[in-house]
Amino acid sequence: MMEKRTPMPVQEAVAAIMEHRIESRMEWTDLQEASGRYLAQDIQADHDVPPFDRSPYDGFAVRAYDTLEASRDNPVSLHIAGDIGAGSVFGGTVEAGEAVRIMTGAPIPDGCDAVVMLELAHDYEKDGHHYIDVKRPFHVNDNISFRGEDTKRGTTVLQRGTVVHPGVTAVLASFGYAEVPTVQKPHIGVIATGSELLDIREPLQQGKIRNSNAYMIMAQIEQAGGEAVSFGTVSDDFDETLSTVQKALHSVDILLTTGGVSVGDYDYIPDILNELGASVHFNKVSMRPGSVTTAASLGPQLIYGLSGNPSACYVGFELFVRPVIQKVLGSPAPHLKKTKAVLGADFPKPNPFMRFVRAELKDENGGWSAYPAGLDKSSSVTSLSDASALIVLPGGTRGYEKGMDVDILLLHSAEGSEWPWDNIVRSYRS
Amino acid sequence: MMEKRTPMPVQEAVAAIMEHRIESRMEWTDLQEASGRYLAQDIQADHDVPPFDRSPYDGFAVRAYDTLEASRDNPVSLHIAGDIGAGSVFGGTVEAGEAVRIMTGAPIPDGCDAVVMLELAHDYEKDGHHYIDVKRPFHVNDNISFRGEDTKRGTTVLQRGTVVHPGVTAVLASFGYAEVPTVQKPHIGVIATGSELLDIREPLQQGKIRNSNAYMIMAQIEQAGGEAVSFGTVSDDFDETLSTVQKALHSVDILLTTGGVSVGDYDYIPDILNELGASVHFNKVSMRPGSVTTAASLGPQLIYGLSGNPSACYVGFELFVRPVIQKVLGSPAPHLKKTKAVLGADFPKPNPFMRFVRAELKDENGGWSAYPAGLDKSSSVTSLSDASALIVLPGGTRGYEKGMDVDILLLHSAEGSEWPWDNIVRSYRS
Repeated sequence: MMEKRTPMPVQEAVAAIMEHRIESRMEWTDLQEASGRYLAQDIQADHDVPPFDRSPYDGFAVRAYDTLEASRDNPVSLHIAGDIGAGSVFGGTVEAGEAVRIMTGAPIPDGCDAVVMLELAHDYEKDGHHYIDVKRPFHVNDNISFRGEDTKRGTTVLQRGTVVHPGVTAVLASFGYAEVPTVQKPHIGVIATGSELLDIREPLQQGKIRNSNAYMIMAQIEQAGGEAVSFGTVSDDFDETLSTVQKALHSVDILLTTGGVSVGDYDYIPDILNELGASVHFNKVSMRPGSVTTAASLGPQLIYGLSGNPSACYVGFELFVRPVIQKVLGSPAPHLKKTKAVLGADFPKPNPFMRFVRAELKDENGGWSAYPAGLDKSSSVTSLSDASALIVLPGGTRGYEKGMDVDILLLHSAEGSEWPWDNIVRSYRS
Repeated sequence: MMEKRTPMPVQEAVAAIMEHRIESRMEWTDLQEASGRYLAQDIQADHDVPPFDRSPYDGFAVRAYDTLEASRDNPVSLHIAGDIGAGSVFGGTVEAGEAVRIMTGAPIPDGCDAVVMLELAHDYEKDGHHYIDVKRPFHVNDNISFRGEDTKRGTTVLQRGTVVHPGVTAVLASFGYAEVPTVQKPHIGVIATGSELLDIREPLQQGKIRNSNAYMIMAQIEQAGGEAVSFGTVSDDFDETLSTVQKALHSVDILLTTGGVSVGDYDYIPDILNELGASVHFNKVSMRPGSVTTAASLGPQLIYGLSGNPSACYVGFELFVRPVIQKVLGSPAPHLKKTKAVLGADFPKPNPFMRFVRAELKDENGGWSAYPAGLDKSSSVTSLSDASALIVLPGGTRGYEKGMDVDILLLHSAEGSEWPWDNIVRSYRS
């Protein structure tokens, strides 16, 4: 009746699924819809930035040579030969003793080689002509933004795998990318298993609970950059579960199930993976919560059996599914961002398995303190809403004390880690 | 010709616009669409969690009293009286000497007060009856998740102003919130001004640049939680700009303009605010970049004149617009997240104004180092794509050296600050 499973250390389990290759597909996305998407190609500058020598200020374009002798006591007078707004081009060439009124961003007129800021030029009218007084010398190239000084044409300005945030949007707009080459979001199917699951719109019934896992995982999928596809809830029935899994596998890159993954009589996921002929990468991980997390591949597709316990399901997703989605997207740092914190409370209970403790972070004295969030049971839903990090407590024979330095994994960070597992995995091996 | 402006310290400018009140509106959002939205109300638990005493494991529900004498050498034999899957309820009452097969999450049957985990129970058949052997004593309440132990009915489980991330989604689903009371996104209009602006689909022309600011700001609005409404580009023409501003004010909570805000001949925003009768909170801030940032109110609406320079525009938005949007949403921490870093490079040039230097962050030795990102000119677009923080360098007469501790503001953090300005503002006052 009982199947024996060998727990795999977390690091090895993550490495196993990261070796699996899922193809990335490119699609063009409207720039205004591209926020949060990942670039499928390097982006090159299609022109110099600035595209011409231009004025960074409102003021007067001058010939620096004319101002060489200028001082407070002996201002130099220049004739205003014209006026040039941003977006316009000055027609003629500026001669000795002349200046041109220029606006921020406008091209430097031929003949000029410096800009006098508006605040430093006194303008006046005399005999129907306009002049400025300049009271200090300016040097060649003063106050000019040079063509290409920001970026030369042909430079790679954005790397493949960059996530589109507002600063990236600005660069894409500058270089005319009204459509952006983005990585298509991988399609991730979700099946919730369990006869105890009610739809969230149903009233509670004795013995049943509402299906929170599927909604949570779909939100996790979106946060990780994937496209969630729900295949609903199935009861604890082998045939129903199998046919739903088979249907889902027609259209997804990755399939996630929650529940039914343990060793109980109604846990059909192991049998279904067997029936499908999937090759199981692991079916037990030396971690808490989420030790029964299962991952298997079937050709190019990955199938995960996540725990039915909300917190175990959550952690299993973040450790094993998120990095696979991020890898498809081309992210250079696909794993949860690892950083350090000080443990905010004792965690006395030793555990041979590595523990991931949901935690609230507080910024104290310029560093993070990590406080275990609420009840740390794998069945707890409400503690998930307070957690912004997972404290990583390597397995061993000792507990952990308040004030100790610990590794944490950030749950809502826009940044990730390349490989967070070195140096923190001293986990139990059976 | 020149208007004199008095620069306001950054802290005072932020405080001025934060005093302005914009009404929050509530709307119901489908749970699957609610990610990233802000809760408009506190959320109460509509039932105990767990809703009934249940088993956290697969195993056998037993009467602890029956196992008191159990040991490895003298196992206690219990008759399996039935079997109960998750979602089912055991019909009868369990009598002395009996056990019931129970699945994770199933209700504890009447008469039982402990659960023996599957791994610790040896089951066998004898004379057509099924039994388990228990080899150690169990105590009353061993391995039972009690009704309400996670959350009691009526408890506030989520606060107004909470952003919906996957853990919050799980809680909302558990309590049956198929529709979620969210704060309606404030509508933020965007007008780009400047005769030099080309649409991003147009080829470059001498003297002109593509309109990157509007796309950037719309992405910033979305990132801050607002709804961006584009009113296109207007050339440097007073009447055209005025009529576009008036049209936009019919439908937005906040209006943003970029460009035309300085003291040049084609900078019409000051005149337009005057024409509208708007009351100006500030029109110069003692900061670099973005010193010409302007903010005014017209009844319940806010109008911002942001710089036309991309980086100045970017910084002006993050400091002065983002917190107003976040306040409408009910965020308890509406400002950019402030934290500490070590300056990664010299910044020798002193400046009387407070500087916001775009920076790349590197996690070194468990702390952040902040490296100025590319060219730090307010006209630079490409440096925006690399920046994940702003280094805050208070104004003064000295430069800053590599290795100094500095304050930084995180640009892509899901978290914010309540009020980041205390202790860092030692800015120039004219």
